Amino acid sequence: MMNVPGGVTAAKGFTAGGIHCGIKTNNKEKKDLAIIYSEVLCNAAAVYTKNAVKAAPIYVTMEHLKNGKARAVIANSGNANACAPHGDENARKMCSLASKYLNIPEDDIIVASTGVIGQTLNIGAIEKGIPELSKSLTTDGSGSAAAAIMTTDLVKKEISVMFELGGKQVYLGGIAKGSGMIHPNMGTMLAFLTTDASISPEMLQEAISEATRVTFNRVSVDGDTSTNDMAAILANGLSGSPIIDSKNGDYEVFLSALKYVCQVLAKRIAADGEGATKLVTCRVFGAPDEETAETISKSVVKSSLVKTAMFGSDANWGRVLCAMGYSGAEFSPSDVEVGFKSEAGEITVCKGGVGLPFDEELAKEILSEHDVSIEINLNAGKSEVSTWGCDLSYDYVKINGDYRT
Amino acid sequence: MMNVPGGVTAAKGFTAGGIHCGIKTNNKEKKDLAIIYSEVLCNAAAVYTKNAVKAAPIYVTMEHLKNGKARAVIANSGNANACAPHGDENARKMCSLASKYLNIPEDDIIVASTGVIGQTLNIGAIEKGIPELSKSLTTDGSGSAAAAIMTTDLVKKEISVMFELGGKQVYLGGIAKGSGMIHPNMGTMLAFLTTDASISPEMLQEAISEATRVTFNRVSVDGDTSTNDMAAILANGLSGSPIIDSKNGDYEVFLSALKYVCQVLAKRIAADGEGATKLVTCRVFGAPDEETAETISKSVVKSSLVKTAMFGSDANWGRVLCAMGYSGAEFSPSDVEVGFKSEAGEITVCKGGVGLPFDEELAKEILSEHDVSIEINLNAGKSEVSTWGCDLSYDYVKINGDYRT
Repeated sequence: MMNVPGGVTAAKGFTAGGIHCGIKTNNKEKKDLAIIYSEVLCNAAAVYTKNAVKAAPIYVTMEHLKNGKARAVIANSGNANACAPHGDENARKMCSLASKYLNIPEDDIIVASTGVIGQTLNIGAIEKGIPELSKSLTTDGSGSAAAAIMTTDLVKKEISVMFELGGKQVYLGGIAKGSGMIHPNMGTMLAFLTTDASISPEMLQEAISEATRVTFNRVSVDGDTSTNDMAAILANGLSGSPIIDSKNGDYEVFLSALKYVCQVLAKRIAADGEGATKLVTCRVFGAPDEETAETISKSVVKSSLVKTAMFGSDANWGRVLCAMGYSGAEFSPSDVEVGFKSEAGEITVCKGGVGLPFDEELAKEILSEHDVSIEINLNAGKSEVSTWGCDLSYDYVKINGDYRT
Repeated sequence: MMNVPGGVTAAKGFTAGGIHCGIKTNNKEKKDLAIIYSEVLCNAAAVYTKNAVKAAPIYVTMEHLKNGKARAVIANSGNANACAPHGDENARKMCSLASKYLNIPEDDIIVASTGVIGQTLNIGAIEKGIPELSKSLTTDGSGSAAAAIMTTDLVKKEISVMFELGGKQVYLGGIAKGSGMIHPNMGTMLAFLTTDASISPEMLQEAISEATRVTFNRVSVDGDTSTNDMAAILANGLSGSPIIDSKNGDYEVFLSALKYVCQVLAKRIAADGEGATKLVTCRVFGAPDEETAETISKSVVKSSLVKTAMFGSDANWGRVLCAMGYSGAEFSPSDVEVGFKSEAGEITVCKGGVGLPFDEELAKEILSEHDVSIEINLNAGKSEVSTWGCDLSYDYVKINGDYRT
């Protein structure tokens, strides 16, 4: 497997694009409408937010993907179309407008929205923009599409890889957006993935669910889970690779490429969390099982007190132990080892559940890097899980203190 | 029942005091060692943090209260004595030192600590300070004791009331500290309560558990639950009121006074949360049962996105619905009504699960008050629960970005 350029259009037969149509009213430079299109019908699968309050496009996409088929994605940013008047009507209208200009059935379209909750979607702006949006479709349009799904994201998130299946070169790529409300079980996170592998809808669903579980669902920015999250994948089979319709060797190769792509996007989402100055990884190892490791790791990575300490490059490991303690997982505090790690080095600060004397200067240096890792050894087994988050900074408060206006 | 002065020394036979002994090294003006003493042996009860990682003094106090008796409290601030070398030894030493100067058995002493986790407690400073601490005991020492348990708290928290039981005047009062790591199921919260009512250890335990459930456990500052929390109550019977040893009418009167006292302290803890500029109440009513109301209310009050919106006086009710949605409680989003309320007025912003057009100016005015309430009607029953929190400000980040140094 190797990294290749192209993002969501790296795979054969996919085009993408993005424009500003007027949903984002405060900045005409900012794209707010994205499209992804396959020249042939794809097998498709998706995972959705577990929030009891779901945005209208989530329900419409669920309905459209019941048959495991899709051919295009239309997504807007700037308005979540959640808890909004005429939500269902407007989500369906987005599909029918795209359907008309792409000349494909409405129910082959995946629709998604992200942005402010509770305000009526400006469907008029979308209607006016659709002709231009359709024209924006190109084989190098991944970046435009990635830009058009951003809200408070600062950087575009794209990735693509090439690998072999049955002697054929297969491409897999994707775009994603994150930023606020990112939390395990899907934040306001959108990820759209495309591949020219040939894989059945059932196996595609299996793969996207499994990849999401160990990547996107292990990211936390602020503990809030959004109404709008979705990760969807389209597979058009144009690579000519043999069909994957069971959990065979090819499935494993495909899954491992998908996990890699999702993990790269997940980590970029964490690093670009609202106001984030750092990517914080929490690696829990020596755990009796994966569930214990994951519960502890997520609790640490989402603790506001740990996150502010990371912002201050403060080796306040007591807060790490504290967050482990209220995670609900069972472990023996007196067996715990805690350390911090980055490019600047590695330091152990707690052993046997109590503090060690340590070099505060070195600790500060380690935690001043952009990528820092909290390393927790439970000394109780062989399971290991990493989750990803970011620090909690002044800018998080600034961005969220007045997001709507 | 009426409010009276006196705090933790309002009840007959109680004295209290507080000094600076040197645990807080950065400011000699700041008291760091508190004492509360009853002239006779008390029935006593307490509730503790549910964090799996518990500080050493928690275990020692649990042991000392097994017989339901106590006569004094010794507590330090500046160091949590949690995950620290010699934790158990030092917690016991605090009791033995107090025992010697108060001339009472060690196991009649409640011991508590609050502050930084993982550093060795400066027991030498406590040993040196104990003679002065014992001398500080006076009938108007409640304020000194309240000051000596503060960490990042900005204001002292004291309250006391007088009520009648069997024709006798009974006093009940307390002090508390809160600030960071405050969250349902006890934050780094200490509360010490005293009364001259006569009540059995069993009924006292029942009362403090029930009062804590609906007051302290409904406060959230940052979602972190501390290793050190404790609410303890001492009842010395000196009022001469009839003994409460069953859930009779007197018990109900006592419980209602205790709930009032705990609620006042709980709300002051929320309002004085780290960096808080506002007391935020979330009242959920029209709920099918108390558990549903409480789950939803807590989820809203602890949401970082709701808290930052409150800081910005932004009526971003979409975040309220979103936090309700991921709370795990079952409810029908399309029946929900959301409003905001304060001294400046009241406004409904969402009805039937979708946004209403509303006066943004008025909403801003309402949310600019110090005490604001998020009002949620589920339209599904008659249960109601309020929980208390605060906003999330720049200062929260500042305070916690570098707390240790």
